[in-house]
Amino acid sequence: MKTLDDLLKQPGAWLNVGGNTGVLVSSRVRLARNIEGEAFPGWAGEEESVRLWNELRPVIESLPGLSSPLVLEIADLSCVDRDVLIERHLMSRDLAGKGRGSGLILKRDESMAVMLNEEDHLRMQVMSPGLKVMQCWQEINALDTEIESRIAYAFSPRLGYLTACPTNVGTGMRASVMLHLPGLVLMNEINGIIKGVSKIGLVVRGLWGEGTDASGNMFQISNQVTLGEKEAAIIERLEKIVLEIAEHEKNARARLIQQRETSLRDHIGRAFGIMSQAYLLNSKETLDLLSALRLGIDLGLVTDWPKAVIDELFVLIQPGHLQKWEGKAIGAEKRDLARARLVRERLAERRRKTG
Amino acid sequence: MKTLDDLLKQPGAWLNVGGNTGVLVSSRVRLARNIEGEAFPGWAGEEESVRLWNELRPVIESLPGLSSPLVLEIADLSCVDRDVLIERHLMSRDLAGKGRGSGLILKRDESMAVMLNEEDHLRMQVMSPGLKVMQCWQEINALDTEIESRIAYAFSPRLGYLTACPTNVGTGMRASVMLHLPGLVLMNEINGIIKGVSKIGLVVRGLWGEGTDASGNMFQISNQVTLGEKEAAIIERLEKIVLEIAEHEKNARARLIQQRETSLRDHIGRAFGIMSQAYLLNSKETLDLLSALRLGIDLGLVTDWPKAVIDELFVLIQPGHLQKWEGKAIGAEKRDLARARLVRERLAERRRKTG
Repeated sequence: MKTLDDLLKQPGAWLNVGGNTGVLVSSRVRLARNIEGEAFPGWAGEEESVRLWNELRPVIESLPGLSSPLVLEIADLSCVDRDVLIERHLMSRDLAGKGRGSGLILKRDESMAVMLNEEDHLRMQVMSPGLKVMQCWQEINALDTEIESRIAYAFSPRLGYLTACPTNVGTGMRASVMLHLPGLVLMNEINGIIKGVSKIGLVVRGLWGEGTDASGNMFQISNQVTLGEKEAAIIERLEKIVLEIAEHEKNARARLIQQRETSLRDHIGRAFGIMSQAYLLNSKETLDLLSALRLGIDLGLVTDWPKAVIDELFVLIQPGHLQKWEGKAIGAEKRDLARARLVRERLAERRRKTG
Repeated sequence: MKTLDDLLKQPGAWLNVGGNTGVLVSSRVRLARNIEGEAFPGWAGEEESVRLWNELRPVIESLPGLSSPLVLEIADLSCVDRDVLIERHLMSRDLAGKGRGSGLILKRDESMAVMLNEEDHLRMQVMSPGLKVMQCWQEINALDTEIESRIAYAFSPRLGYLTACPTNVGTGMRASVMLHLPGLVLMNEINGIIKGVSKIGLVVRGLWGEGTDASGNMFQISNQVTLGEKEAAIIERLEKIVLEIAEHEKNARARLIQQRETSLRDHIGRAFGIMSQAYLLNSKETLDLLSALRLGIDLGLVTDWPKAVIDELFVLIQPGHLQKWEGKAIGAEKRDLARARLVRERLAERRRKTG
């Protein structure tokens, strides 16, 4: 798939690549929408799904906001390509498991994506580096308005937008912010923060969403409630809390330097040493090592590479991307070998360029 | 103590420094002897011990075999100096705990040492790099004969030489070989070897003797029995077993390369990465990292340094040597910091010289 492979040549909208952010890595807003009079995808048969795909696809594809997007039908994608799209946060693992009639329509700069026939008929998202939830909301709201002027949504005046899962009914909106919180993790304060956030109606998840752990000390914080509150109010509250957490993180980093400078330098130095010299690296360990280098760059303790090199590796070391890089499907053990080689080469190459 | 400090400028006879050995690191033979008609040191009071020290010292000091040795009274040594001597395998921890009347008489090249009023009145040893137990025995036997021509030993025609502890009665000889066995450890075969060796009357101990673990994958193998067998027979058996273990080790290394080359390279690469970049290194971890580098040099996978640099570090990173290097007594936490700095500097400096 030439068009999908082209994606891999750009750094990707996700994870602040090119954004040079610190604690506040990226923002994302997604909307769940369904078409009036149509069965939700989980209840529709393949025939209905394919019919709906054929009806919706030309409408979405031609939206001015998406400016000639990439159209990807799931059934046409290899397993590796599906993994690549998931790893770039462009589609869900749920969509990857679907058959005919499901697909992804993707703005070529990766900032906007619309999934068709995932759990809902439409799942659209806007992503941006840094803390820009309100801006993401405005962009996705404009896209949503464009679509709504062409298609009749399933909508209840009492409940709002109707969705396949009741947890999304109302606004259908999930706004989230990715935070890099190594300071709170190293100071053993992260659990208190997670508990506190959960009590006020927000959800904390790992790097790849629900059910994944916070590898690389990356945490996604999103709204729980979609019913009974305006989108702007939800987002204002989310941004406020996220800024508070970022303050806690900065505070934790300051105390790390004051109270544990040597063990912090040791932590970062070892990460650098292992990444430069290991021959086998699994995904979890690599994310944790990258997190240490990312922290080191933020604190000025690592100056060998621009942060973009490290941030890009967060994505490139994932199984799908690794297999793209190798040019073939390879098993977990060989991936560990390839991952270590990629990391060594990438660090050595970029260091030469900047050195 | 100018004379003791001079020792630190030489590489030391122990651990094959300068010997460029592989699996068979070093050999050592010690003899326990006591003076006829005198109470063993554990029963003698300080007055008797001091009297005996004053009688024995001039005799030992003037032996031609020791050629103007260094004479060190324990009570005159600082704690750091005592540690340095223990770390260089020149005296025992037992001797270090003694007071007036105990001491060490040391040939200046460190190959021979005589402890006075340790557990026995005399404990003399000869050390050599490589597998040279029989040669060590011949040298110490010559020294013993010199002493015996001047002093009457406690001797029983039926039992042989009498010693404070019954486990040494007879020959009073303990012959030992230090082996570096990372292959057997990495292949999980070391426990079988240790069990087998124990069944045939030999003892396996760690780097610093009884009760220490095999940090750095260094194992000391010595005879258990001192009674009812001639010294030469004991040594022949020890050398034979040790050569068999060395064969097993070489075999394990060959299989490591055949079956697990990548994880072996990973193991060695990580050791190098951590040693070059860590800011905190405790003694146990450092010995294990040094063991990995030493194995890497033996296998031709590490070519950055001559082995002598690594072998020297086995001793230099020990607490006493570290404190000598720092020029003052420092606690365990600061030692970890100093140890990491020493390792980083030493590896960087020696690499430049050879590179």
